[in-house]
This record gives sequence, C-alpha cells and structure tokens, in this order.
Amino acid sequence: MLQKLKPEGPFFLESGKQLPEIEIAFHTYGKLNPERDNVIWICHALTADADVANWWSGMVGEGKCFDWDKHFIVCANILGSCYGTTGPLSKDENGDVYYGHFPDVTIRDMVKAHIALRKHLGISKIKVLTGGSIGSFQAVEWAIMEPEVIKHLIMIAGGAKATSWTAGLNEAQRMAIRADKSFFDLTPDGGKEGMKAARAMALLSYRNAVAYNKTQPLDPSDDYRKLKAITYQQYQGEKLARRFNAYAYYVLTKAFDSHHVGRKRGGLQKALSAVMARTLVVGIDSDILFPKEDQELIRKFIPGARLQWMHSEYGHDGFLLEYASLTKIIRNFMEEGGGL
Amino acid sequence: MLQKLKPEGPFFLESGKQLPEIEIAFHTYGKLNPERDNVIWICHALTADADVANWWSGMVGEGKCFDWDKHFIVCANILGSCYGTTGPLSKDENGDVYYGHFPDVTIRDMVKAHIALRKHLGISKIKVLTGGSIGSFQAVEWAIMEPEVIKHLIMIAGGAKATSWTAGLNEAQRMAIRADKSFFDLTPDGGKEGMKAARAMALLSYRNAVAYNKTQPLDPSDDYRKLKAITYQQYQGEKLARRFNAYAYYVLTKAFDSHHVGRKRGGLQKALSAVMARTLVVGIDSDILFPKEDQELIRKFIPGARLQWMHSEYGHDGFLLEYASLTKIIRNFMEEGGGL
Repeated sequence: MLQKLKPEGPFFLESGKQLPEIEIAFHTYGKLNPERDNVIWICHALTADADVANWWSGMVGEGKCFDWDKHFIVCANILGSCYGTTGPLSKDENGDVYYGHFPDVTIRDMVKAHIALRKHLGISKIKVLTGGSIGSFQAVEWAIMEPEVIKHLIMIAGGAKATSWTAGLNEAQRMAIRADKSFFDLTPDGGKEGMKAARAMALLSYRNAVAYNKTQPLDPSDDYRKLKAITYQQYQGEKLARRFNAYAYYVLTKAFDSHHVGRKRGGLQKALSAVMARTLVVGIDSDILFPKEDQELIRKFIPGARLQWMHSEYGHDGFLLEYASLTKIIRNFMEEGGGL
Repeated sequence: MLQKLKPEGPFFLESGKQLPEIEIAFHTYGKLNPERDNVIWICHALTADADVANWWSGMVGEGKCFDWDKHFIVCANILGSCYGTTGPLSKDENGDVYYGHFPDVTIRDMVKAHIALRKHLGISKIKVLTGGSIGSFQAVEWAIMEPEVIKHLIMIAGGAKATSWTAGLNEAQRMAIRADKSFFDLTPDGGKEGMKAARAMALLSYRNAVAYNKTQPLDPSDDYRKLKAITYQQYQGEKLARRFNAYAYYVLTKAFDSHHVGRKRGGLQKALSAVMARTLVVGIDSDILFPKEDQELIRKFIPGARLQWMHSEYGHDGFLLEYASLTKIIRNFMEEGGGL
C-alpha cells in the first residue's frame, strides 16, 4: 500500500538550496519483527516507483528471495521523481508547480530522504540494503552515510560513480528534451516528444546489440520500412510518456550524473573504505552501461567486498529479468552471512 | 579537387520514385594508368564527404596505404548528403528546396550513382573497393550489383544488413530530430537542435564505455556540473550542426536502415554468394555498433572471404583512427592477392 511521510520543516539539499517541504511516498510489505532485525530496503532505479513487489515481482513476495512473510520490506520513491515523492510536478511555497525550476538533487539528497523515512519507521538496522542501477547508487551512498546501520549491502549493475560514458549518454538525452521547445512551456506535457527520444536512446544502453537483435528480430519482409525496431522504439517512448514527465526525467538524469561517492570525502577510495556492511557486488557480464571496470572498482575499495558476475544476454536490463540467477546469487551470499 | 558529374535525364530510385536530375560530387587523386587497372574506390560513411584524403588522411596519400602516386583514387559524395551530391537541400523541378520532401533513398541508390560515375570516368575494373561503416554497406552492395567489376572488396566495421540494433539507434535519433518542431519549418537550419542530440547519441555508439571514459576523463573537481562529457557532447552536436543539415541526416539514417543485401534477391546468403571479388572483412574487436555477429555473417556467406579482427580501444571509430593497424592488415591481404 502506498503510504506518505511528510517530514517537518524544510529539506536542505546538498547544493545548499532547500525545498520548503517534502513528501516521501513509500511501500512496505510484511511486518517489522520485535527484534527489528528483519528489514530489507530496496532502492529503485531511474523511472521506477515504490511498488517494488510490482516491478521486481520475481524477487519480492511470498517464498521469493525477499519474502514478506519473513521480512519487513521497504521501498521509497526517490526525490525528484513523480510517483508520490516531491518532484518537479509538485508545488512550491507559492503554490506554483516547479517544472523546470525544481532544484538539482543528488543521490545523497535521495538517501537523506530515505534516512528520514527509516527513522520515522523506527528502523535502526537494515539487514539487507539493495538496488540495481541507480538503486545501487543510493545503496552505496547510504552505506557510507550510515555505515553502522547497514548490515549487508548488495549492489547490482551499478557503480560508485557516474562515468563520463553515463554522463555522455544522459546529456545526449537531455539535449533531445531541450530540442523539444515545449519543454520550456512549463506544462505537464512539456518536453514529452523529447523525452520519448531520450527513452528510446536510453533503452539501447539497457540492452546490447545481441540482446536487442534477439528480442526485435528483423522483419522477414523485403520492405525495410517495416523494421520492427523502429516502431518498438516509438512504442517504448510512448509508454514512458504515459507514466512519466520530462521535468522529472531531466532532474533524475542530472541526479544520476551527480553520483560520485568520493565527492567532498577525500576521494573514492577513502569513501568506499568507510563501508562497514558485508558487501556483494553483482555485475552483469553483458552490461554496456556499467561494464566490468565499474564493478571492479567497487570490489577493490569496499573492505572485503565480493564481486559476483551474473551471466545474462540482456545487458543492463538483466537485473529486472534474471530472477532465478539473482535469487541464487543473493541466497548464496546471505547463507554465508547467517541466512536471509 | 571537387568535381561534379550531372548524368543525363532523371534518376530512378529503388522505391520507384525518381529525382528529375542529380549531380554527383566527387574527388579523384592520382592518374588512371594506361591499363586502367589501378583504381581504388573508397566509399564514405554517414556524414563524411568526397575528400577522402582529408578525412582518411592516414590511409590516402603519398606513400600511404592508398598511394596516389600509384593509384587512381576515387571517392564520391553519397546521394542524400550535403557535400555537392543531390540531397534534401537541393532544388526540385519547381526550383523549390526539397527539405523533408526528398524521397527515401537506399544504399543501392547510392551505388547506382557511383556506377554512373564509374562509367563516366571510363573505369571498367576496380582494383580495390573499400569503405568503413556505411561505406562498407555501399561496397558490398556494389560487389553484388557488379560482381565482375570489383577485384578486391575490403569491408571495414560494417555489415551485410542493418540490424534491429542499428535501426533502433537510428530511430531514437530521428525521434530527437522530430521532437525539434523546427524540423517541420523547412528552413536550412530546421531541426538542428534535434540533430545535435542525435549526433551526441550516435557518438556513443561509435565508441564504447572504456574508450569514452579514457578520452573524456572525469573532471577531478568535486562539482559534478563540470563533467567534461556533458560539454563534450554539446560540442560534438554543435560541430556537426555547423557542417550538416537535419534533412540530410534524416534521409541518410533511413538509407542506413534500408541496407539489406538480401532484399529482393532471395535472401542474404544467396545475395552474398554472388560476390566474385576477393574479399577481406575487417572487424574491430571493441565495436559496439557492428559487433562480431555482423562480421561473421559476411565471412560466412561471401565465397572465400577472410575475416580479420583489428584490435582497437576506440570501438567503431577505430576505422578512422587506427591507421597503422589498418594499413598493415590491408597490405598483408593485398600482398597475397598480387600486391597493391
């Protein structure tokens, strides 16, 4: 069930700016046990929402890897998004919708909101903190911000920093959004054509050539205009446009770019060495968005971290598809750490 | 020196449509020998021009792999482009600029124009026909359309067909152009913001994560807004916008999508088996745009074709950068075939 928390007072951002007030939308599943030691916290990726049992249905549920009969599972919508937590389509102190005037947020700001929610829920220890893609960005930030709170950290298909590669991809997407001049009209549908192009572009980075060609085979027809990939890209753009807005998309890609655990902490190595959680890094062998260099960097600097490669043909999107492999990898890791 | 050919009469396109007249811009370097057997024909890629000695300076010139002291080197600007050959900014029979009304062209149409030029230049045999990326598309099409004319075919970082992957990438780019409503204004600058985003997107596919991160290292600054990759993407978009137009870019990406040597020829295998040229396929080991599956397919079906992998960190763009390796690979191949 979607719940909301409205913390008291203004919310101070890393940038020094502030939001006069915020709301945090979240889902919980299962019950916090009397020992309060059965918390699984899942951080979601770029355009997902707090209903993790829906978008990660193979991982969360009765008898699943994260079992709500045993665990108290929490997922909160990230700051800057559009699924209940404060974002660009929320209203500012004057009652005007923010749109393009929503301040830049960082991954640290998102985690700061998660921490407010953690305290509100009376949670002092998180047994497993996990997430894929920018979900893993939040997870590793959190493990640095509150090392004593996180017992097990499982980072999937992510990294300790945005790279030039990911920033280049995000900027190409923002260029498409800005090329759509309706983005500057500041209406709920502003920039949607640009966002559709951005999504189509992003989608390719979530797959790879082999995966994409397999799922979108060439039309056997002699007519090249019937290439399924063309309508598929349009369809994926439309699909996002029905559930998301360009302002939130813009803000979230900038938050993605902001990710660097070493910022103002004396660099990456020093920051990662502060992690006290028992850590598992899951890399996907066909991921072109977060290739092996990103995974190896985390393993190298988080004390005792283990790196496990997951085979998948589906590239980055493998974390949303390879439920059996992921469950096995996580269960193995947790068994050696006292069980899930 | 840029020269122009204006073939007589209308130019009939594969689609059944026609252009009332066309011009073909081309460069030649060196002299056709009395035996007329020293022709090197180079087909250019998406946004290049006929001045191959400029954009492929490490491969073409005195003492280079393709040596104008020995060879008669030809490169023609492709149909639909904007460097002298008829394209969307040319005028139609009414004296109006085509813009978005330029008909779809295919790789075969481009080759048909090359063939008109070949005849005009009095060339009956081409010693080496080569090209990288969609240059290789033209080369393989030509080797099928005129098998008896092409002696050696060298395809670099390309394929026998556009794939769903490449069509998906091209459509994402066209979505960005269409999101820029000025594209429909039909002026020379129409759609340029969209094209900038498209170029930024395409650029990533010409590299890969490792290459991109190496050439665009993270700014050591703590301020994520200074990420060099962001301004680099914008710069690359601007750079193309100064020399290209969105209508030509749109038409050429559609021509890219049209590529399938098997179309109306009973399929890919049958079409490729018609190639009589001694063939070398050069694949780049880090190319994410045309990965190994594309190269292996050509080798498999062109009789006697050899596949040579070129190591490069630079991905697809390696064909524009790895002059020493490419020269060595081509010279080795040609030595066994009687020398260059």
